[in-house]
Amino acid sequence: MPKPTRHLALNAFLMSAGHHEAAWRSNATEPDDYLSLEHVVELARTAERGLLDSIFFADVPVLGHPDRRPSESLDPTVKLAAIAAATSRIGLIGTASTTVEEPYNLARRFASLDRLSKGRAGWNVVTTATDAVGANYGITEWPGHEERYRRADEFVDVTLKLWNSWRPDAVVGDRAEGVWADPSRVQPIHHRGEFFDVAGPLTVGRSPQGHPVVVQAGSSGPGIALAAKYAEAIFTAQRTIEDGRSFYAELKAATRRAGRNPDHIKILPGIVTVLGGTEAEATARADALDDLIVLRHPHEQLAHQTGLAVDQLPLDEPLPAAVRAPDDNTGSRYALTLELARREDLTVRQLLRRLGGGRGHRVFAGTPEQVADTIELWFTTGASDGFNVMPATLPDTLEDFVDHVVPILQQRGLFRTAYEGSTLREHYGLPVPGEGALAGVSRAG
Amino acid sequence: MPKPTRHLALNAFLMSAGHHEAAWRSNATEPDDYLSLEHVVELARTAERGLLDSIFFADVPVLGHPDRRPSESLDPTVKLAAIAAATSRIGLIGTASTTVEEPYNLARRFASLDRLSKGRAGWNVVTTATDAVGANYGITEWPGHEERYRRADEFVDVTLKLWNSWRPDAVVGDRAEGVWADPSRVQPIHHRGEFFDVAGPLTVGRSPQGHPVVVQAGSSGPGIALAAKYAEAIFTAQRTIEDGRSFYAELKAATRRAGRNPDHIKILPGIVTVLGGTEAEATARADALDDLIVLRHPHEQLAHQTGLAVDQLPLDEPLPAAVRAPDDNTGSRYALTLELARREDLTVRQLLRRLGGGRGHRVFAGTPEQVADTIELWFTTGASDGFNVMPATLPDTLEDFVDHVVPILQQRGLFRTAYEGSTLREHYGLPVPGEGALAGVSRAG
Repeated sequence: MPKPTRHLALNAFLMSAGHHEAAWRSNATEPDDYLSLEHVVELARTAERGLLDSIFFADVPVLGHPDRRPSESLDPTVKLAAIAAATSRIGLIGTASTTVEEPYNLARRFASLDRLSKGRAGWNVVTTATDAVGANYGITEWPGHEERYRRADEFVDVTLKLWNSWRPDAVVGDRAEGVWADPSRVQPIHHRGEFFDVAGPLTVGRSPQGHPVVVQAGSSGPGIALAAKYAEAIFTAQRTIEDGRSFYAELKAATRRAGRNPDHIKILPGIVTVLGGTEAEATARADALDDLIVLRHPHEQLAHQTGLAVDQLPLDEPLPAAVRAPDDNTGSRYALTLELARREDLTVRQLLRRLGGGRGHRVFAGTPEQVADTIELWFTTGASDGFNVMPATLPDTLEDFVDHVVPILQQRGLFRTAYEGSTLREHYGLPVPGEGALAGVSRAG
Repeated sequence: MPKPTRHLALNAFLMSAGHHEAAWRSNATEPDDYLSLEHVVELARTAERGLLDSIFFADVPVLGHPDRRPSESLDPTVKLAAIAAATSRIGLIGTASTTVEEPYNLARRFASLDRLSKGRAGWNVVTTATDAVGANYGITEWPGHEERYRRADEFVDVTLKLWNSWRPDAVVGDRAEGVWADPSRVQPIHHRGEFFDVAGPLTVGRSPQGHPVVVQAGSSGPGIALAAKYAEAIFTAQRTIEDGRSFYAELKAATRRAGRNPDHIKILPGIVTVLGGTEAEATARADALDDLIVLRHPHEQLAHQTGLAVDQLPLDEPLPAAVRAPDDNTGSRYALTLELARREDLTVRQLLRRLGGGRGHRVFAGTPEQVADTIELWFTTGASDGFNVMPATLPDTLEDFVDHVVPILQQRGLFRTAYEGSTLREHYGLPVPGEGALAGVSRAG
């Protein structure tokens, strides 16, 4: 196989004790240490030691099941800012929702992170809309899927305008005349739309990468449209290489149709990794983790999603035939879950173990060689531009990945042996927006 | 004078190149370095080296005059989180407004900062309501002063309920049973009010100090009522010791009437410091800074506030007799400005130079001994519990304060010679809320 000239992107998706929901039961970390500065800084430094492009924290502004797993969640921008001070190269991506934020506040927070980190920030755009989240914001009824995505579209548009409201050459620093910035190079955005009226300009100017990288995850119809229009990186959940290739081709085509260069959207499927010296060792490790899953809660959650009572979903039988995802929700994580159960003919117990292991993402238990093989195969055959690496347990599985998988990818000429740049855009190979950008022009990229 | 047993509190109020608006013209720092991580970390470490209680960043979510001074402003929680990773003891206080935030988002962001910093966070509650800020949030008309403070009251109440929604002993970490936290110790708040409906619980549990310290600055009537009910520290602007004593007595009495221990509200007037080896040197330094103020912008701003044209406010004449603060705005910074002009019989030029130097706060140019004398006098004669130190230029005036004023205060037995505790509450001598707190109980303090 010829050495690929494309750049393989690797993001470490970090979650408390690890992506496997029983991870916290399997190791000796103190149970309330997962939220500590030391823990998250150690993870980020490990990822940086492995020359990864970025780390990522997901977010839902509602408490999960505190009796089930480490369920606290800190605001991602606050956590990433602390990490920014303790690292120098790794990209810093956090989720924030267009449904429970003000564009001015969100744009400012991510721009602040981008400035402090010298151009390493990324915003993962989500359109949160569960009843439980709504209850924390006085929202009793969410707008439909379509309206939510229309709001998300306008929200991202406003955010980009705010990020572009300072020209890169705005600060002149003329001490003699007492002029700090040239006001003609800092312009209001005068946005008036269906959902938001925002005057601007932002209180924060340009970072070395122009503005934060826009990331998106949605793989539903409106999610793909939003991604094609704005996203520069995609964290997606594709469980087979066929699904991966089909999603990859669809999104690249949609991006081209949206008038953008398809190379400027990096598609990174999630892979939950459980590593072992031999395949048997990795599988045994994954099984041992699955044995630690407390099934009661996900069982109740699945019952809630399907609209059935728990005892209508016996653990050792397949899902009842009548269970389907709502028509307006194809491509959602729930729809993918049901698809998985059907395709692999799983019992409810098997399905819940799979979900507990990877929350809908592809779980891969194997040797470092096998993980490198699968990454190479997806990357070189049109299924991905890299991977969203989701260590099952932390910090150990991330260390395993950095110490054992990365060197193999480097030996194969697939991955960098040193950081070439210092911004997230440079890591991902994305253009710098904003050179000559003016207010009202969404972006130059 | 007997050695006081009360604890003197010192907060460093940090602002870009310094509080003097011409500070950036007076030194050799690169003009866009004021927002850098290195700059703010250096300031915080200097304050920590001086054993100060805390640092503080103010905030207004609208851009100031970019041609006048370094006017960018990063989100304070993001900036403070970065500083948290680079310091270990100093308290970290940031402003956020009850008018442009959601309580769940704000409570979570400050609780996240409090967790990551191991109990060093403080929230300065403000009720921003200028037209320029409104325009960034689609708000064309703000509610009146009274309604804004009613909203602020409910906002703080909700925030405290969320911060208290986890009992300190909630995380049990029972690996054998697979129970991470005891769900009976994490309770929803079920808040339903005039402005907010918030279910809770928060996604973040207790920090070592229980929850962030609540700070407030308002010295208007409703501001004092809010402070008496909730505030644990007050950053105020009193220009004479008589004003200071009268405000101190009024607020302590109001706090007692609100059913709280008046020792649990620390009153810290602002003092803009310009230091010199001799008084003449300090005064010359202050004058040289004042000479660098570009008067055009504050002149226009004063004209706007007074409702007059610029040429109706000649620089070398006193304020026209007809100019007064609106009746519903007594105690505001603008009202205090007018009072100052009358009391000291200042011309418009003199007034603008004063304001440019300290933005309405007391400017003190003197030797370290003189600054220590004034701090001691205010502290020991019922005018303050400490000071909100506002260095005119940064980093040099902060370094001067730490290296020359702090040792004098220590020699006099007024200030600590080592940190006794590690949380902001310990530094300020405030009680830890939350021991035994349950949802719905605002706080134990």
